[in-house]
Amino acid sequence: MASQENLFDPKLFVRKELQQFSPYTPGEQPGLTTSTIKLNTNENPYPPSPKIQKALEEVIEKGLLRKYPNYHARKLQELIANDYDLDPNQILVTNGSDEALRLLFQTFIGPGDTVVAPDPTYSYYPVLTEQMMVGANYKAIPVLENLHFDFETLKKSDGKLLCFAHPNAPTGIEEPKEKLLDLIRSFRGFVLSDEAYIDFTDASASLMPEIKHHPNLLVSRTFSKSYALAGLRVGYIVGSVETISWIRKLKDSYNVGIIDQVIAETSYQDKEYFLTKRNLVISERSRLKTNLESLGFTIPDSSTNFLFCKPKPGISPEHLYLSLKEKNILIRYFSYGICKEFIRITIGTKEENDILFQSLKALV
Amino acid sequence: MASQENLFDPKLFVRKELQQFSPYTPGEQPGLTTSTIKLNTNENPYPPSPKIQKALEEVIEKGLLRKYPNYHARKLQELIANDYDLDPNQILVTNGSDEALRLLFQTFIGPGDTVVAPDPTYSYYPVLTEQMMVGANYKAIPVLENLHFDFETLKKSDGKLLCFAHPNAPTGIEEPKEKLLDLIRSFRGFVLSDEAYIDFTDASASLMPEIKHHPNLLVSRTFSKSYALAGLRVGYIVGSVETISWIRKLKDSYNVGIIDQVIAETSYQDKEYFLTKRNLVISERSRLKTNLESLGFTIPDSSTNFLFCKPKPGISPEHLYLSLKEKNILIRYFSYGICKEFIRITIGTKEENDILFQSLKALV
Repeated sequence: MASQENLFDPKLFVRKELQQFSPYTPGEQPGLTTSTIKLNTNENPYPPSPKIQKALEEVIEKGLLRKYPNYHARKLQELIANDYDLDPNQILVTNGSDEALRLLFQTFIGPGDTVVAPDPTYSYYPVLTEQMMVGANYKAIPVLENLHFDFETLKKSDGKLLCFAHPNAPTGIEEPKEKLLDLIRSFRGFVLSDEAYIDFTDASASLMPEIKHHPNLLVSRTFSKSYALAGLRVGYIVGSVETISWIRKLKDSYNVGIIDQVIAETSYQDKEYFLTKRNLVISERSRLKTNLESLGFTIPDSSTNFLFCKPKPGISPEHLYLSLKEKNILIRYFSYGICKEFIRITIGTKEENDILFQSLKALV
Repeated sequence: MASQENLFDPKLFVRKELQQFSPYTPGEQPGLTTSTIKLNTNENPYPPSPKIQKALEEVIEKGLLRKYPNYHARKLQELIANDYDLDPNQILVTNGSDEALRLLFQTFIGPGDTVVAPDPTYSYYPVLTEQMMVGANYKAIPVLENLHFDFETLKKSDGKLLCFAHPNAPTGIEEPKEKLLDLIRSFRGFVLSDEAYIDFTDASASLMPEIKHHPNLLVSRTFSKSYALAGLRVGYIVGSVETISWIRKLKDSYNVGIIDQVIAETSYQDKEYFLTKRNLVISERSRLKTNLESLGFTIPDSSTNFLFCKPKPGISPEHLYLSLKEKNILIRYFSYGICKEFIRITIGTKEENDILFQSLKALV
């Protein structure tokens, strides 16, 4: 056995294409016992629907835990389909929207294929392109100086898949719907509108109603942000019945557990609570933005639950990030490209935002 | 737009390798309103630990739902590591053991690689080999006439990965530990011992304690069967720290939600309840086996929570399956290879087993 231990090197067995692969780096997680103010991963500062407790009791009472869940999260499919006048089979419910994105890439992106995206956008897309490591290319189209998409260049780009966050992350900027539709019509491959933050802007901004008119359009959503359910893993992707049926083939049989399904259904139906908390985030966003601007930060209008903040000249964003971290306030700093001139701050509760503001005031 | 709709064909965008791919077929799920007796997917007939209710209340009280879960399900890693004297980093907690298996295959199986397995065994392995569709080969080594592994041929087989269920499915047979260890020592690639059903046999049968002596050995487990948590999606895979670090690279950032983590932790720690229910399944297994043998079925000794039953000559297993289905009793019938001579019956409650027995009695 000793000789086998010495001889056996797992790395020699790893697929060549994966040996240099670096996974996505999620935001830091403080230890559970600290009193850290966590404004780094765009979580919702408010709790999810209070109706969840009763729904959970019912899951246990009905003995649903011991049984395999529905493969498709059928009830949730139906609720969503009903809201957007879609066929439930146009909706694939996934283990967070991360799984939806991964399945999309795994289904369509192969050797020689190109994925096009604005830069910056959600930094998981290049990781997914690379994860396949089958020789696919990631073509990043830099945003304009005003941080808006370079539609002219995007329209001229060829690729099998174009993806962007709508509204965009980490900029928080929402592009006009007409410009996005124009891009979708001219792009010859799939277009993914990743709407993780769409609930923090006007409902009319979503591209969901456009799916029935644009067979190359896909929309992804998550319960992690606006529904305050990052602790669950529930997201979904919507497209034509045929496209979704291809993506579904690669999912694990039971990808979303019964409790996740039931909590998502319950939260989705509690629209009044949802709107109240969403409106609170939006009003805090406006207040925090004004406060931070008074400290000299330049901040584009945000359609999300975070602010992308450029400090006045001479102040290092990385220094702000590190100094806040010392005070147990976590925000996000990205050390690459245009992002390194900014810090990204999730909207917290009024109290959290005030502590953040006072701390930044002392720093700038 | 109309012209785009006509021109856009999603199939043309699907990776060539996936166009012929057929996903794994999970067991049937009856409609939620029927009074179906469900003995087809090896679910536990008893509910999970009653301590779950309180644990769930705490998750909500502590406001954990709105926050992202720990990436690694750290507490669960530590509980398992502690029981087997392992480093927590040797354990990767996954969205059901299906995710563990998928990640294992995606990490190591590439073009020209061979996966070796006894036949029959868990039918997800060939699907996973094919899912990659990168030109990997699945080498199925038929079991002997007595349904035991053909160790001689397995030992002579070359491959990057050898996998088997231990105890095996759908036969229910447990191979002697010494023979498995001998195979692990002689096989030059990874060996996966898929221990989904291990809790239904003697604890000493597990290969978990052998991981520290065999760097090529991996063990997977699930909470779906013995912990009565099929509704959750929690499983795990255990191996050397280095092997697990490779497999971990491909997982989604947050693959297991906080509720799944907490319920799994709570259930794992309630060992007394666990053993009581497990012992009930084992005693019902023995009673049902004797009853079915009295009807002329030939049934190998089962170390699992199901029985693999061969009816007496002249009685068609498929006919039994279909006839029971008409009576709202679901069992599993596999229409391929040696399996087509058998039906697989999950151990239910005493009442369910009695109804099944009476129904089969009327049929044979």
